[in-house]
Amino acid sequence: MAEIIVAPHAGFCFGVKRAINIAERVSREKKDKNIWSMGPLIHNPQEVERLRKKGIRVWESEKELNEGDTIIIRSHGIPPQKEGELKERGLRVVDATCPYVKAVHQAVEKLVGEGYYVLIVGEKDHPEVIGTVGYLKKAGGEGMVVESKEDLEKIRGVEKVGIVAQTTQNEQFFKEVVGEIALWAKEVKVINTICNATSERQEDVYELAPKVDLMLIVGGKNSGNTRRLYEISRSLNPRSYHVETAEELREDWFANAETVGITAGASTPDWIIDEVKKRVEEILR
Amino acid sequence: MAEIIVAPHAGFCFGVKRAINIAERVSREKKDKNIWSMGPLIHNPQEVERLRKKGIRVWESEKELNEGDTIIIRSHGIPPQKEGELKERGLRVVDATCPYVKAVHQAVEKLVGEGYYVLIVGEKDHPEVIGTVGYLKKAGGEGMVVESKEDLEKIRGVEKVGIVAQTTQNEQFFKEVVGEIALWAKEVKVINTICNATSERQEDVYELAPKVDLMLIVGGKNSGNTRRLYEISRSLNPRSYHVETAEELREDWFANAETVGITAGASTPDWIIDEVKKRVEEILR
Repeated sequence: MAEIIVAPHAGFCFGVKRAINIAERVSREKKDKNIWSMGPLIHNPQEVERLRKKGIRVWESEKELNEGDTIIIRSHGIPPQKEGELKERGLRVVDATCPYVKAVHQAVEKLVGEGYYVLIVGEKDHPEVIGTVGYLKKAGGEGMVVESKEDLEKIRGVEKVGIVAQTTQNEQFFKEVVGEIALWAKEVKVINTICNATSERQEDVYELAPKVDLMLIVGGKNSGNTRRLYEISRSLNPRSYHVETAEELREDWFANAETVGITAGASTPDWIIDEVKKRVEEILR
Repeated sequence: MAEIIVAPHAGFCFGVKRAINIAERVSREKKDKNIWSMGPLIHNPQEVERLRKKGIRVWESEKELNEGDTIIIRSHGIPPQKEGELKERGLRVVDATCPYVKAVHQAVEKLVGEGYYVLIVGEKDHPEVIGTVGYLKKAGGEGMVVESKEDLEKIRGVEKVGIVAQTTQNEQFFKEVVGEIALWAKEVKVINTICNATSERQEDVYELAPKVDLMLIVGGKNSGNTRRLYEISRSLNPRSYHVETAEELREDWFANAETVGITAGASTPDWIIDEVKKRVEEILR
C-alpha cells in the first residue's frame, strides 16, 4: 500500500494569508470601486484567478489607474519611492506588505545608518528584492544584491559589510555567503531576515525528500520560494517534480513509487495541495 | 630529477619576529638581570633553546620570580588580570603581545560594549585564547570559546552574537561557525581577527599540498597554527608529515616522490626550515 506524506509546513505562510485576508476585506468594503493589486497578489496564478472573481484585478500598467482607485501593495512590498508616487496620484494605498519583509527594510536602514555596505542575498529581479533595494537607496546607502558567489568578487576590499536576505532565501546559500564574506571583510554584521516559514519549509524538504520514492513540490512556476524548495528537493532526490496543479501530474512518474512526499511553497493555497493529493491517491490506487 | 618547493609564506610571522626582536633587545640591555618569558616565547622548542642561551629563561612557576626581574609577555598575550598581578609584584613587564592579538582583545571589548554575546573561535587551552577570555571577563561580557560545532548547541536561543577568532584559526572552520550562527541568531557581528599570516600560510597549503607527491609541515608539535597547517595538508594529500626538525625525517617516506612541498608554521625559525630542506635534498639525491 503506497503512502502519501504531506510536509507539515506545506503551503501558505503568515504573510500570504494576511495579504489575502486584507485583499478580501477590501473587496467586501469597496464593492463599487476599482481594486487593484500591484502585480499578482501572490505568485500563484490559480489563486490570483480566484481573487479576480472577487473584483481584485492585477494592475500591470499605469494607464489603467484612476484617482480614487484602491491599490493593494502585496506581501512582497514595493520601493518607498513607488509608494510615494501612488499616493501622489490620489490612489488609496492599502499596504499588505508582509511584516517580515518590513523587517528587512528596517534592517537595511539600520545597517546603512551604521556605515555598512549592504549585501542583500536574494534574486535581483524578485519584487521583494526590488522593494528592499528601494529602501537601501532611500537611506542613501551603498550595496548590492547577491545572487551567486561570483557576485561577491565585486566587493573584495570593502571593509564593513552588512548582510540581510530576501525572506525566502535558501538558507544554505545565505550561510555560504556570510561565511565567505566573514573571511574577506574586517567587520561583518548579519541580520538574518530569512523568515521562519522559509526555514520550516526548507527543513521539511531536507527531512522528507531523501525518505520518499518520489517528491512533489506544488506551487507557482513564478514563485521563488517554491522553486528553491524544488532545487533543494532535486539535490536530495532525483525523482522530484515541480507542478502548479494536479493536471500536470503524469502517471508514469509514479512507477514503482511506494512513498510519495508532497510539499508546497508559501504562496500555494491549500485547495491546490488538496487537489494534488487526491489526484496522487487516484494514480496510486 | 626530484623537485623541492618551499611555500612562499613558510615560517616566522610578523608577531613572532617582533617578539623575538624584543626579547633579544631586552637580553642585550639587561645582561645582569633575570629575564623570563612567560611560557615559551614561541611554540618551538629549538628556538626557545637558542634564546635560553642568550639568557631568556622560560618562567613556568611563580616561585622563581624576584622583584626587579624582567618578564616578557610573549606574542600570544596574557589575561589583563595576570598582567596586573605581575606589575603588583614589582616585576618589569615587557609586552611583546602581537599587535594582531591586541586587536582581538579590542574586538572583544567592542562587541561586549555593543551588547553581544561573544564567541571566540579557537582552542580553549591555547594561551592566546586564555588571554582573550581574560579581556572578555574584564569587560564584563558573556561568551564562550568555540572549538567544535558541538559547542554551538550551547548558545541556541542567544539573539545577538558577536564572533572573533584566535588569530591562527582555521579559516574554513571559522567560516562554517559564522555561517551556522548567522542562521540561528537574529543579529550577528563578526570581526574577523584571523591574521593575514595565518590566511597566507593556509592558502599556501591549499595550493601546494594537492600538487606534490609528499608534503612536509615543519614546526613545534605544541604549535596550534602548525598543527592546523598539517590537518589541512593531510585532508588534501595523505602523504603529509608534521616534523619539528630534520632529524625526524624518514627516508622511506620519500619512496617514488618526485615533488616535495615544504611549509612551516608561524613559529618555525628559518634555520630549521633550511635544515629540513637540506636533509630532503640529501635523501632525494
